[in-house]
Amino acid sequence: MREPRGERIARLRAGLLEAGMDGLVVSAPSNIFYLSGFRGSSGALLVTSERAVLFSDFRYRIQAKEQASECEFEEVERRLLHGVGRFAREAGLSRVGYDPAHLTCALREQLAEGASEVELRASGGMVEELRAVKDVEEVELIRQAAGLADAALAYMVSLLRPGAVERDIALEGEFLMRREGAEEAAFEVIVASGERSALPHADTTGRELERGDLVVIDIGAQVAGYCSDMTRTFGVVSLSSQAQEIYRVVYRAQRASAAEVRAGAVCGELDAVARGLIADAGYGECFGHGLGHGVGIDVHEGPRLGRDEETKLVAGNVVTVEPGIYLEGMGGVRLEDLVVVGDEGAETLTGAPMAPEVPVV
Amino acid sequence: MREPRGERIARLRAGLLEAGMDGLVVSAPSNIFYLSGFRGSSGALLVTSERAVLFSDFRYRIQAKEQASECEFEEVERRLLHGVGRFAREAGLSRVGYDPAHLTCALREQLAEGASEVELRASGGMVEELRAVKDVEEVELIRQAAGLADAALAYMVSLLRPGAVERDIALEGEFLMRREGAEEAAFEVIVASGERSALPHADTTGRELERGDLVVIDIGAQVAGYCSDMTRTFGVVSLSSQAQEIYRVVYRAQRASAAEVRAGAVCGELDAVARGLIADAGYGECFGHGLGHGVGIDVHEGPRLGRDEETKLVAGNVVTVEPGIYLEGMGGVRLEDLVVVGDEGAETLTGAPMAPEVPVV
Repeated sequence: MREPRGERIARLRAGLLEAGMDGLVVSAPSNIFYLSGFRGSSGALLVTSERAVLFSDFRYRIQAKEQASECEFEEVERRLLHGVGRFAREAGLSRVGYDPAHLTCALREQLAEGASEVELRASGGMVEELRAVKDVEEVELIRQAAGLADAALAYMVSLLRPGAVERDIALEGEFLMRREGAEEAAFEVIVASGERSALPHADTTGRELERGDLVVIDIGAQVAGYCSDMTRTFGVVSLSSQAQEIYRVVYRAQRASAAEVRAGAVCGELDAVARGLIADAGYGECFGHGLGHGVGIDVHEGPRLGRDEETKLVAGNVVTVEPGIYLEGMGGVRLEDLVVVGDEGAETLTGAPMAPEVPVV
Repeated sequence: MREPRGERIARLRAGLLEAGMDGLVVSAPSNIFYLSGFRGSSGALLVTSERAVLFSDFRYRIQAKEQASECEFEEVERRLLHGVGRFAREAGLSRVGYDPAHLTCALREQLAEGASEVELRASGGMVEELRAVKDVEEVELIRQAAGLADAALAYMVSLLRPGAVERDIALEGEFLMRREGAEEAAFEVIVASGERSALPHADTTGRELERGDLVVIDIGAQVAGYCSDMTRTFGVVSLSSQAQEIYRVVYRAQRASAAEVRAGAVCGELDAVARGLIADAGYGECFGHGLGHGVGIDVHEGPRLGRDEETKLVAGNVVTVEPGIYLEGMGGVRLEDLVVVGDEGAETLTGAPMAPEVPVV
């Protein structure tokens, strides 16, 4: 069974007390979902020392009662955050936090107008900090999502050949995941071939695969609100020796950094393991993103495995390990596994094979 | 040919001049796309009287050059808005606008730090105002999107029967649109049956259709960045007389309000036409949303056809006309067409038939 949401709210309350606040306005949809279960597109949650109140409009009246059954519900016709602020004032709260990264200037203004004399305090990341550590059921949902992406990837690989179209391959992968039970793709499935494989966040296009292409496939599923994330790289028919070489470098960097993942490992040091190997091979300038990121309700969340990050991993973090080398005009390679951090090491949730030499189809 | 993006920027500059500003920071992705063509997930655009500069990070370096070829490109490693602010200061700008509805408090802070003595002015909706009036090529893309949704709906109707699962029907509709060329569904395809049809923004579930259900299908495609939006309602095998009645009321309200759409019509008066008919039939409390909304790059944009809206339609607006009646615990009906406003009337872009009596499958 999932840890009751009430438990999460209790931990948040402990944090609020410590920070000297008697309320928090939660505005990011993924934080609202984490704490309440509500998945509508418009809502806000006010957590106080004794209450958890979900605010939304008429459209979500019934859905809110279904999904956020542990919360009170307040219907607000217009100016949602004004309604939240007014409620906070009427409840006699004195110091209420909000997340400046997830509240627009306009909504902050509404909140302040409604709250009038209540002190508002910028207080980001409190819910994200809780979310970075997954409970057993959350890991199980991510594992299910990863399994669906494994199955999709295997099918997509069977479609790789000269003349195959990036978009068609991506579509077949997504459909397979969703027919098998994914709510949706965790993000737009990326099939990036040839020169386009050098775009770290390429969109998928109508390009036809050609002999000699590198093909990067980056795919994840979403199950009950939880995401997975995985990348593999393939070659079409035959590859240049440089393409083969950068694959081998990325593979070594991926394996070496993944082997160091465990509770207590410093995120920046994990990044340095991969970055060092890539630099030693002469491609230091060609790995322009961080080693990885947390995955959960959002496909990008904490902790961040980037350069100089001093955060230490803890058991229950779920993170990607995904070095890459991108050569503009030639192509790119990225290899990404999703792992759950344990005390002694990491368990890999992605199940697709990762070959030490580039698999050529 | 599409009106060059340079033309749009020229019109924006005229507005800036009039408002006494020498720059505007554009932060909403759909506004950035409209003005520059850039579709990455992270970026900002600074428009000044002489320059249009797109800011993004390493990941989008190549994509930005491809998609936003008419703009200069500035790469910013971290704290994107800080980089935008610094650029504005170094360019000697004196008064720069930003949109408070599309900038978080945290990014506003970054911008202000970078811009230091440059005056920042909250100035929302300038780009949205331009976007509300579509040019010929924009209408053509929306028409293509609507056509894909028509085809999908026809196929989905063929799948409606007792025992069919909401999610499977939605998935088949989405796949058809995407196989035929939609980039994606414009929003999650809604198939809401039985009691769930009373949720105006229902999510699609694993519920099986049953005899006597009302089934609301709300579907749109996206083509080259432009959306469509359409809703039809069906009955399964047999329907209660009340279900048949509310369908007839909604149909009359839809037809009557759509017939009044033309350049010069007041949005709130169109809403009142539908709302009046629904109230006269005794269901005034059961139509809790506005009559419609603009559709374009976003599936919800200006103008808004809501209660008391004093905006007048102009030729080139593309809007939905979608009254509904929702009876909690029983079911709901919504009928929605997408129309382009002309001087003499409206042209309907959605092509699926809308029957005067509820179609029973």
